[in-house]
Amino acid sequence: MAKVKLGPQALVYPMPLFLVGTHVSGQPNFLAVAWSGIANGEPPMVSVAIRHSRYSHEGIKREGVFSVNIPSADIVRQADYCGLLSGKRVDKVAACGFEVFYGGLSGAPLIKQCPVNLECRLVNSLDLGSHSLFIGRIEETHVSEECLTRGKPDVKKIKPFAYITTQSHYQAMGDIIGKAFSCGRGLGDRPVK
Amino acid sequence: MAKVKLGPQALVYPMPLFLVGTHVSGQPNFLAVAWSGIANGEPPMVSVAIRHSRYSHEGIKREGVFSVNIPSADIVRQADYCGLLSGKRVDKVAACGFEVFYGGLSGAPLIKQCPVNLECRLVNSLDLGSHSLFIGRIEETHVSEECLTRGKPDVKKIKPFAYITTQSHYQAMGDIIGKAFSCGRGLGDRPVK
Repeated sequence: MAKVKLGPQALVYPMPLFLVGTHVSGQPNFLAVAWSGIANGEPPMVSVAIRHSRYSHEGIKREGVFSVNIPSADIVRQADYCGLLSGKRVDKVAACGFEVFYGGLSGAPLIKQCPVNLECRLVNSLDLGSHSLFIGRIEETHVSEECLTRGKPDVKKIKPFAYITTQSHYQAMGDIIGKAFSCGRGLGDRPVK
Repeated sequence: MAKVKLGPQALVYPMPLFLVGTHVSGQPNFLAVAWSGIANGEPPMVSVAIRHSRYSHEGIKREGVFSVNIPSADIVRQADYCGLLSGKRVDKVAACGFEVFYGGLSGAPLIKQCPVNLECRLVNSLDLGSHSLFIGRIEETHVSEECLTRGKPDVKKIKPFAYITTQSHYQAMGDIIGKAFSCGRGLGDRPVK
């Protein structure tokens, strides 16, 4: 099992694909963002890395709020569209047929067709090079009612997908391969020497 | 399609499961971390959120370097194990049978059985509440030779998996549902008014 060095690469699996919502020039706009993740537990925070030149970058900086919308496999084409073109040029909401709604943060547009929506208040931003890392405190979580099972968000109904950078495709979730915080228990207890 | 509010939650799909490597008390240790993602493009950077009380937190702070190892579905039990117990108490390397190797950063242990390994130098850390968000510049990427197809990392061979927080399970990748930067093209071009 030899290893090959590929140089510094942004190579992780799986990456999510979030539709990050902002207001720019008074209009809702959504950008597809794969470079993101949860940044803190209590309070819950999420990070999104956005290139300086992006139209959404300006919106987040100015508004101090943004949204994270998690698309399902049913709207993969619309999600892809939001990464193809700039909101400076096209009206993504109209092209994708998104129904936009709002929670408590007026500058953070949410997409009804996305099963999970997070309203975020910007609490930190780092200029790391090509991108700004925006860190948002999650102020509210909205979930589509039909994606709940006994009141809990259900991944089978949400149907999230991953962005696979090396093969440049989107991939749905597959088989369940283990119970978390459980399947490793059999490995034994080797006290440190 | 009504929406239900669940309050602030760290609810994103899919989350990865990284094994973050550090040296603590001179020994390699690995922690399962799902709250992470790419933080910058040029230079490539990755973020990992680690609870203050964790053994690895101390190691990263002291060493200024860490690794991100991406487990395949073949070692899901070992990956889970690294989230169950503290390296303060158990020798995770021995219990999991990990073969540890090093690249250019001596404090950043890498796991041979993980198909992708990133060597990271700590460039920023933010105390965000319960967790520190550590941001590492990716200095080298190692990929197992048998996971390459024509020199490129191949997701079919890497077999990454996601951690699904709401159902508390690990889930493999499934069907390919669209070509990235391509499948959204048909949606038309609606110029902004």
